[in-house]
Amino acid sequence: MAPSFNSLVGFTNCLIVQEDGTSLQGDLWVDEASGLIVDAKRAFFQAKQRPGKMVDLGGNILSPGFLDIQINGAYGFDFSVYEGDEAYLQGMKVVAERIVETGVTSLLPTVITQEKSLYPKLLPLLKPFSTLGSATLLGWHAEGPFIEHTKRGAHAPSLLLSASGGYETFQGVYGADNLVDEAGWRLPEGQDVGVRMITAAPEIPGVIDALKVLAQKGIVMSIGHSTASTSVATAAVKHGARLITHLFNAMPQFHHRDPSIVGLLGSSPSLNPAEHIPLVDVTCEMHTPTPGTPIHDASPASPNRNGTLIGKAFQRPFYGIIVDGIHCHPNSVRLAYAAHPEGCILVTDAMKILDPHLEDGVHEWRDGKRFVKEGEKLYLEGTDTLAGSVVTLDKCVRNFSKFTGCSLGEAIRCVTYNPASCLGIESKKGTLRPGAHADLVVLDKEGNVLSTWVRGKQVFNRSVA
Amino acid sequence: MAPSFNSLVGFTNCLIVQEDGTSLQGDLWVDEASGLIVDAKRAFFQAKQRPGKMVDLGGNILSPGFLDIQINGAYGFDFSVYEGDEAYLQGMKVVAERIVETGVTSLLPTVITQEKSLYPKLLPLLKPFSTLGSATLLGWHAEGPFIEHTKRGAHAPSLLLSASGGYETFQGVYGADNLVDEAGWRLPEGQDVGVRMITAAPEIPGVIDALKVLAQKGIVMSIGHSTASTSVATAAVKHGARLITHLFNAMPQFHHRDPSIVGLLGSSPSLNPAEHIPLVDVTCEMHTPTPGTPIHDASPASPNRNGTLIGKAFQRPFYGIIVDGIHCHPNSVRLAYAAHPEGCILVTDAMKILDPHLEDGVHEWRDGKRFVKEGEKLYLEGTDTLAGSVVTLDKCVRNFSKFTGCSLGEAIRCVTYNPASCLGIESKKGTLRPGAHADLVVLDKEGNVLSTWVRGKQVFNRSVA
Repeated sequence: MAPSFNSLVGFTNCLIVQEDGTSLQGDLWVDEASGLIVDAKRAFFQAKQRPGKMVDLGGNILSPGFLDIQINGAYGFDFSVYEGDEAYLQGMKVVAERIVETGVTSLLPTVITQEKSLYPKLLPLLKPFSTLGSATLLGWHAEGPFIEHTKRGAHAPSLLLSASGGYETFQGVYGADNLVDEAGWRLPEGQDVGVRMITAAPEIPGVIDALKVLAQKGIVMSIGHSTASTSVATAAVKHGARLITHLFNAMPQFHHRDPSIVGLLGSSPSLNPAEHIPLVDVTCEMHTPTPGTPIHDASPASPNRNGTLIGKAFQRPFYGIIVDGIHCHPNSVRLAYAAHPEGCILVTDAMKILDPHLEDGVHEWRDGKRFVKEGEKLYLEGTDTLAGSVVTLDKCVRNFSKFTGCSLGEAIRCVTYNPASCLGIESKKGTLRPGAHADLVVLDKEGNVLSTWVRGKQVFNRSVA
Repeated sequence: MAPSFNSLVGFTNCLIVQEDGTSLQGDLWVDEASGLIVDAKRAFFQAKQRPGKMVDLGGNILSPGFLDIQINGAYGFDFSVYEGDEAYLQGMKVVAERIVETGVTSLLPTVITQEKSLYPKLLPLLKPFSTLGSATLLGWHAEGPFIEHTKRGAHAPSLLLSASGGYETFQGVYGADNLVDEAGWRLPEGQDVGVRMITAAPEIPGVIDALKVLAQKGIVMSIGHSTASTSVATAAVKHGARLITHLFNAMPQFHHRDPSIVGLLGSSPSLNPAEHIPLVDVTCEMHTPTPGTPIHDASPASPNRNGTLIGKAFQRPFYGIIVDGIHCHPNSVRLAYAAHPEGCILVTDAMKILDPHLEDGVHEWRDGKRFVKEGEKLYLEGTDTLAGSVVTLDKCVRNFSKFTGCSLGEAIRCVTYNPASCLGIESKKGTLRPGAHADLVVLDKEGNVLSTWVRGKQVFNRSVA
């Protein structure tokens, strides 16, 4: 069989990072035309195809593209600053196009607490977005305004809100259109994966009530900027929260008698049995049951979009963690990872001044406030309040491997398969399984990014950068 | 081959707990005469023997006897109260004989901070001790007086000491005879395993210096009642500390930027390379090296009695933990266990009023102080200071399995193989390997003690208790 001219690209001579963090030598085939990963055996034996183009990776590491689910901005653009639609869309484009040099091919632009009137302007712009040659913005992550005053970090205290109306308060703030069910929110193209995420403090009145509804709509609910006790934090998870926002930061110190949010990493299914939630389809609630038909019969537990099973045993949440060596001590990082490895997600929490080449000094932020950048440390000017970080996600991966002693592949899992699973998009992103998006990063053995590929096309190459 | 009359006893129809916490169906043979576990294959095929007596355990669990490495007293006797040698020896006997009903076959009597003059009277009495039919007291555990004032718990503040003279101060307090090298301290009978343990706070001046010498003498050094920072706690481990005393209690709250003693459970070998300790035999130090002979040549790292290798990579310490559901929240327990399962050791920290049948109320302690017992809670009268517990070790095992979701076998490992390894006696205690002491506990599937055996002889039977 002679090689036929086609759109297949084969990567060879590489270590391929698996979903479980192990690495195997092998080849990977992608289809440039569809932008998907190809089942090589099937293409070869059934479709009688082999790649028209082979790429020799020289023994380097081939990984799924990285996902950053908490990023406030980069390259001079701040997702929380709205100066008109055009400027905003241009800023999104700049971030999406430049961030690929850090191995990131998907990100969740994060909007911190805003003036209430700004959400309806901002959030509709943050539908899934990408250009040819850029990373994909997967949708928005709203951090606040339903957060705890004493754990507000850099959020503006005057803008924080309670949610006494439950879901309706959330709807009033974020806009009803932005909270429609998943099907009504994604872009029409079949391949787009739209994600919305909300960080809220479950102890704020009304948040738990809202959380139940929002989780059912496929919105990823995350606990953060919170003083929740163990019982409140546990209740939030039982009602659908599936993530902790930047573990350790902006939450109570771990206390052994009320380990609070951090302690969720140690919560045991056996001590937190699922509550009995009637499995009645809500669309049937108004019907009169046929006499003799049991309502609660043996319907299996039904998964929602995020794979959360109603009536299933308690599952420990995922947790984002900022592994810049500043936000938390290496021992804290390893303790968390050892306790719950499959929940670990590295995030940058990066600010607009994220740019691998930016110099130290004072930089403008927003609302007249300024940052001081000292190496990878970033403070509000005149305070010792950490205000996000300037670490890149590829640096977090290298730090993490060093801090925990895990392999580079295991660290990579925390920026690929784990975040994709948290978002419920692990069939498309954060994986190299056939049919997934061909978003790839090539790394050397030390974890430095050599090249980045999105939907099968190279979008960054270190040697020509 | 007809069964010959001999001293072999065979246990059959049971689930045998392995060193790794798994359980396997099988038979176990012991020799009543030697009090040791027998290699059944070898006895059968080589010595042509089989047990003269078989014990059918009815499908129940057969475990090594439990070890409690931190126990202040029980059954009305307090190891910290000296009222003459005779009364003391009688008290030791009572504890050793009665404690077997809780599955404990070995214990480390723990003496809290004393008037300095008392140590030379108390400690010599606490050499390894047992009677026919009793548990074995393995030696002493001195908790204090070199501990931190602000983390003293129920220790008398006026009796706390610093150790400015390093090892000599320790020698002055505990007595030189009690700190001699291992060989000079054990009882002559070949089977005795003598253990000494000291809980001290490494930030107290002189403690780290002393710790190096004490660890070399085979004394188990434990970090506790301390405010040590991450760097001090790490240094203590590097210099030979191999245990943390009642994790979480009497130490700083875990803080993510300085995770302190608790954070040792997350410390990574890769971030704590072993310091280069010259492997020169101290007895040779005064010799002039032969010219051209390198002093630091490739001598292998040499293990001391406890298996600590000089020059070996950083090893996370073992940690005692009180799993009564009161001293720490179940989530904290699971977090610690998940982070470092092989280091986990359940301890009772029990007081003299430990007695499964004792009633609630006010009880005498010592120095005119009194306890209030409320269920399994135990306070200094008039305070909310927890003063040890009244939970039995078998109850801790059941709690632990429930809190962490681990199997009963894995929980049992934390009172058998793990503590024995910490003490460096895992070839004799906490194991069912051939040649080990035939100390056994039979438990039902819920973990309740049915019978206890010491050196091959039954010393407790629930049905006739």
